[in-house]
Amino acid sequence: MAIKFAKRMDNIKASEIRELLKITQKPGYISFGGGFPAPELFPVEEMINITRDVLLKNGTKALQYGPTEGYQPLREAISKRMEKVHVNIKPDNILITSGSQQGLDFAAKIFINPGDKIIVEKPSYLGAVNAFKAYEPTFIDIEMDDDGMIMEDLEAVLKENDDIRFIYVIPDFQNPTGKTWSVERRIKLIEIANKYDIVIIEDNPYGELRFEGEVLPAIKHFDTENRVIFFGTFSKILCPGLRIGWVAADDTLLHKFILVKQGADLQSSTMAQIEIATFLNEYNIEEHIKKIISVYRVRRDIMINTMKEEFPEEVTFTYPNGGLFTWVTLPEYINTRELAVKALEQMVAFVPGGSFYANGGHENSFRCNYSCMDEENIVIGVKRLANVIKEAMMAEVLV
Amino acid sequence: MAIKFAKRMDNIKASEIRELLKITQKPGYISFGGGFPAPELFPVEEMINITRDVLLKNGTKALQYGPTEGYQPLREAISKRMEKVHVNIKPDNILITSGSQQGLDFAAKIFINPGDKIIVEKPSYLGAVNAFKAYEPTFIDIEMDDDGMIMEDLEAVLKENDDIRFIYVIPDFQNPTGKTWSVERRIKLIEIANKYDIVIIEDNPYGELRFEGEVLPAIKHFDTENRVIFFGTFSKILCPGLRIGWVAADDTLLHKFILVKQGADLQSSTMAQIEIATFLNEYNIEEHIKKIISVYRVRRDIMINTMKEEFPEEVTFTYPNGGLFTWVTLPEYINTRELAVKALEQMVAFVPGGSFYANGGHENSFRCNYSCMDEENIVIGVKRLANVIKEAMMAEVLV
Repeated sequence: MAIKFAKRMDNIKASEIRELLKITQKPGYISFGGGFPAPELFPVEEMINITRDVLLKNGTKALQYGPTEGYQPLREAISKRMEKVHVNIKPDNILITSGSQQGLDFAAKIFINPGDKIIVEKPSYLGAVNAFKAYEPTFIDIEMDDDGMIMEDLEAVLKENDDIRFIYVIPDFQNPTGKTWSVERRIKLIEIANKYDIVIIEDNPYGELRFEGEVLPAIKHFDTENRVIFFGTFSKILCPGLRIGWVAADDTLLHKFILVKQGADLQSSTMAQIEIATFLNEYNIEEHIKKIISVYRVRRDIMINTMKEEFPEEVTFTYPNGGLFTWVTLPEYINTRELAVKALEQMVAFVPGGSFYANGGHENSFRCNYSCMDEENIVIGVKRLANVIKEAMMAEVLV
Repeated sequence: MAIKFAKRMDNIKASEIRELLKITQKPGYISFGGGFPAPELFPVEEMINITRDVLLKNGTKALQYGPTEGYQPLREAISKRMEKVHVNIKPDNILITSGSQQGLDFAAKIFINPGDKIIVEKPSYLGAVNAFKAYEPTFIDIEMDDDGMIMEDLEAVLKENDDIRFIYVIPDFQNPTGKTWSVERRIKLIEIANKYDIVIIEDNPYGELRFEGEVLPAIKHFDTENRVIFFGTFSKILCPGLRIGWVAADDTLLHKFILVKQGADLQSSTMAQIEIATFLNEYNIEEHIKKIISVYRVRRDIMINTMKEEFPEEVTFTYPNGGLFTWVTLPEYINTRELAVKALEQMVAFVPGGSFYANGGHENSFRCNYSCMDEENIVIGVKRLANVIKEAMMAEVLV
């Protein structure tokens, strides 16, 4: 059979993370690869009570079809919780999605014709880059410093291109770098977006997982012209297995997401939506988030401290104030895709950095997750990594 | 703000069904509109036990990320159950989706470039037509008789067009007509598809809900060259609120669906997948399906008998041997979009037939669901419909 696939399928590659995860699920492996939350923190006891109550009180509703927009009490609870990131938004401006990954796919579907230009951070979340690629955009990636995307570079690009479809950013504890945009940079982004009339997509899965200081206002907080589309998720602050996220946007923009959602999967799980609404209304998610933060903060400290002790001087890494990742940069002559193979032989895994660059290149970095391993394994894993890195550097010197 | 959306968004319209459902959720309405299963048959008691057991035994796994392909024991259970429709397929050839609606979206994404031709039944499922439209195909719709798509018409189209991307069919108790393809027609379809080297998409949400006779072998049963992609779902035989369906296909084809799933939503709910696997392995779904059939059969009988008694002679309707729908055809001078407005005034709803024609037209038919209303309300609702129809016919005669 000579099957002809659509042209877009040429762009779609398997996610290296998801392939990697299959290997590292075997016993003995220490994986810093995935962006998995710590499962021992999942509120299993509470979920037992919640599912029983939901089914007893509301069983036929929970198991039936529901509206595409989402379960209204969940939309209301999310609207209220958005105040945590200083965003004031009505329940009707929230669409429930099957994880925020679905929002990324929808954004691409709504805005991108083949060849259209979009702007992303350099590097950016590889799951977003892959989702966007299916719609055949031209990526323009813009350098970041420790305060976020460099605004002079952004403006230079916007001056030269009048056909940018959107700017995609992860301003809090970015995946993959762990970097956070300063407030000044957020305000400046809105100024520029207003000036050049561009849509902003703000992806915020980690913003509430801040280890030091106060949660920052979302970019959407500064949005004066309703041009920011905000993506949130319960995957990192509650659990990912229920696949519930949301899109928050102005009426006109949200309506497009609702239309696309109808065709894509009709609606997200009614049962999961009622369960999460019940958790938000009857349990204390703020306390739960505090617990997650206290565990991840210790893991971040241990990973960073062990890296400081064990990694060669030439290796640098970010110090994330929250979220799940640090970003490691090696000397330019080291290719981390090759390094990853050697690391796997030593039963330790990370995600090679090249995958996070929309336009490729930059193979001398990698992403390292600390949320999903206990303290002892973080130390062992980083030591293994240090050995693999040292060997690779030594081999290069000898050549 | 002057937002530019992708060109494909011009094609995406709100589903009339989902808009209609919002109105008919108000008390007093009798809705034959949606394709909702009867909620009083949902296994709520069993689900209470299952969710507790899943969370107690497997809580951290159920709430965590899982593989894109799906939860392996669920894939195994589905593989085994596919024998019900005479399909022999390995667990690894099954991808779990968020309802079979998601499979429709993926199929379009995988195969359709803008302008590419696809073949559908005339009429076809409006949710499929809408999902496909987002990828800007050219629809060729082919007439059906009571045994399915007319094969001479199909072959004539294939002779004249060498660029058909796939043929989409719902062979069992079709949505919207309730018609079922004969075995002969199924065999013939495979012969023709082999001859012209075409992919077939077989959407089978209702096949097991047969009121009379034996469940027919799926078209995939006759597939000699691995060209049939089969979509199944638990929405109609268990419950739709968990949003779990599946795609069954040959390695090469399934791999494309898996890649697309990664970008679209990473995976379907781990929790829902483990719950359904537990139901299949520890409870008796065959008995459950028998119970659903016995209730729907009575409802079908009451709807058809009341239509026979109450509808004017000029009105015809199909006699479905299973599934959820009958299809009503009125004299050509009646427009059922207008009729639907009058019906809503009488607090009874259906879905106007025109929406099910990929290329429009044919406004004198409508789809009527019998699964979701009790016997008394079916009688009242059909009588209301009969009055609305008679009035419309009378008005036409008087003009």
